[in-house]
Amino acid sequence: MKGFTFSAVKAGVRYKDRLDVGLICSDTPCVTAGVFTTSQVKAAPVVIDQGRLANGTAQAILVNSGCANACTGDEGVEAALACSRLVAEQMKVDEENVLLSSTGVIGEQLNVRAFEDSIKELVSSLSADNFELVARAIMTTDTFPKVAAKTITIDGRPVEIRGMAKGAGMIMPNMATMLAFVFTDADISSAQLQQALSAANERTFNRITVDGDTSTNDMVVVMANGTARNRVIDGTGDEADCNAFSAGLEAVLKDLALQIVSDGEGATKTITISVRGANSDEDAEKLGRTVATSSLVKTAFFGEDANWGRILAAMGRAGVVFPPEKVDLSFGDVQLVKNGLGLGREAEEKATAVLKEKCFTIGIDLQDGDGGAELYTCDFSLDYVKINADYRS
Amino acid sequence: MKGFTFSAVKAGVRYKDRLDVGLICSDTPCVTAGVFTTSQVKAAPVVIDQGRLANGTAQAILVNSGCANACTGDEGVEAALACSRLVAEQMKVDEENVLLSSTGVIGEQLNVRAFEDSIKELVSSLSADNFELVARAIMTTDTFPKVAAKTITIDGRPVEIRGMAKGAGMIMPNMATMLAFVFTDADISSAQLQQALSAANERTFNRITVDGDTSTNDMVVVMANGTARNRVIDGTGDEADCNAFSAGLEAVLKDLALQIVSDGEGATKTITISVRGANSDEDAEKLGRTVATSSLVKTAFFGEDANWGRILAAMGRAGVVFPPEKVDLSFGDVQLVKNGLGLGREAEEKATAVLKEKCFTIGIDLQDGDGGAELYTCDFSLDYVKINADYRS
Repeated sequence: MKGFTFSAVKAGVRYKDRLDVGLICSDTPCVTAGVFTTSQVKAAPVVIDQGRLANGTAQAILVNSGCANACTGDEGVEAALACSRLVAEQMKVDEENVLLSSTGVIGEQLNVRAFEDSIKELVSSLSADNFELVARAIMTTDTFPKVAAKTITIDGRPVEIRGMAKGAGMIMPNMATMLAFVFTDADISSAQLQQALSAANERTFNRITVDGDTSTNDMVVVMANGTARNRVIDGTGDEADCNAFSAGLEAVLKDLALQIVSDGEGATKTITISVRGANSDEDAEKLGRTVATSSLVKTAFFGEDANWGRILAAMGRAGVVFPPEKVDLSFGDVQLVKNGLGLGREAEEKATAVLKEKCFTIGIDLQDGDGGAELYTCDFSLDYVKINADYRS
Repeated sequence: MKGFTFSAVKAGVRYKDRLDVGLICSDTPCVTAGVFTTSQVKAAPVVIDQGRLANGTAQAILVNSGCANACTGDEGVEAALACSRLVAEQMKVDEENVLLSSTGVIGEQLNVRAFEDSIKELVSSLSADNFELVARAIMTTDTFPKVAAKTITIDGRPVEIRGMAKGAGMIMPNMATMLAFVFTDADISSAQLQQALSAANERTFNRITVDGDTSTNDMVVVMANGTARNRVIDGTGDEADCNAFSAGLEAVLKDLALQIVSDGEGATKTITISVRGANSDEDAEKLGRTVATSSLVKTAFFGEDANWGRILAAMGRAGVVFPPEKVDLSFGDVQLVKNGLGLGREAEEKATAVLKEKCFTIGIDLQDGDGGAELYTCDFSLDYVKINADYRS
């Protein structure tokens, strides 16, 4: 995509000999929107970026893995500011237009020296071709880099939307997500971009969970540089353009969100929890989220056990009033529960075959209203415990 | 204790050759209080018992493991009623005074034949000595029977309180708990007994979690037969007696609750999360519960990793507003975090030694108010996943 360049280096922030610092740069200041963690415990880069995005403009993003720069107090903020100063000086851009992003261990101070030593190499190696290198540099327990792209048409002109994300553990974004960076050449107003991002985020990153834990460092940032030279999308009588852009952005975010779930720590399966027939979308979301985060449901998926009683039990504690005697449940195309009652051994055997697949949908119909929601989760495996009992050591 | 008898048999409800049905009987109708699951999905015995306890009286409890009789519709209710009819006829007691309780797999119909075949043996073997046999008959994935007792003094007379409980998985009681049955010879009014039970339950069973899942079958029942012949506890100018009884009951429930946590599926450690300095007790409870249920915190405990960043991260998403920069954290006697910042490598090494113990306390001080709460949890081990991926098969 015209106007954006990327680079990544092995800076040694925490580990030696792995890509761990990435730089993303736009030739010109971009219209930029962001959503951030709603955690009360916010990392230093999150606090800084929220301030800097108040004017809806950014030109560069410096991102590192290995250290979250969270729970690091004033020293952490100073360290982050030192890093953004390095970028501003080296790139000759306004420091207020440099965003910072970190992921990794919480509670350790950022190794600023690693950034000082590598800033020249970072800047000199910026190239339009290094997109995936940055996607690799931000990985922690991820097993593959996560990228997605989509081209839409606005007013007969092609507009590109391209994104990257990282995340495998501490995943239950709520109003935000793990790190994701999205770039577009669309010409779009700041207000429209923020609105499209917030809406798409709500239906994508905010609907996934690996382990029910929300990170201190979650952020999604979208930068639009306008080089597509489309008719500007600004919400004044251009509903079709707004919708086309929003749908394109949502497709890219959903692609990235599902990649995070499929790469969930220890995950062997990706599961969509599809709830309908609830009294409201909000009720459907609560019910789906409770099922999607239940350790007992997720270990049953890992064990390929069509133990639907655990799904009903999870729904029962979701804090939503519903009539259990009307619930229908299906695994893939196989109906397993009708009006709250199991359909017997044969249906369970067919449902067990569905559970042996890598991706499947659990359908929940409450037959009680028009509310619906889709949540995305993974199974809970022995490897999840191994990864998280060993991490850091 | 005078007036209560117990029996248990191998009825073959689901498995052969293990104690799976228990009968508890009082010589006379008892003042009886109960608290039950708040799940929207309630098992048949829960629904029946809630109706039968409206008058605060019961005389017998029939309990089985192997089958929860939950999600079983009208057929499940009929099956439960058939069982209570058997008890009423064989024992010559009012059927309305027979309580039912089930635990085991959800979604399968109750095997009434097993009860028909064993009711005579159950009744004929009733004895004051078989208390622990019933505690064994209600075990599912429990590895040991859970019993507790305490003698208090009311008006110079000894009053006994004795209880049993089961539970190892699907444990996050909320307004209720897994199965627990408590007996006392206290002479006490129905209103006072219910009040003492509800208050004690709130600070004991409602503060434990193994895996964050709430059961469809949770119940705690307390039966008081009055044979201690103490001055009746009825809330009319006998505050000291009420307090003595409540404290005794709470001690028994807390003992049983902690036994459930220590026997949590796969658990290797029992951890108290002690929160103070919160704006309110409710805030403290929310923060403590979020830490106590976090998969990342619990796997770090299993890995004996003093990864305090995960505790701060869990607190951050608890839905409570608090200043992270004031948080103090300690593992046992070792302070690890002061005013939101880690105290360094040496403190972490000392904290790691605490984590190697079987029981320890995580102290969280928000330094922001007078609110406090204690939650009780266990670690999250490889065996938890193994047990729950294999259960049923």
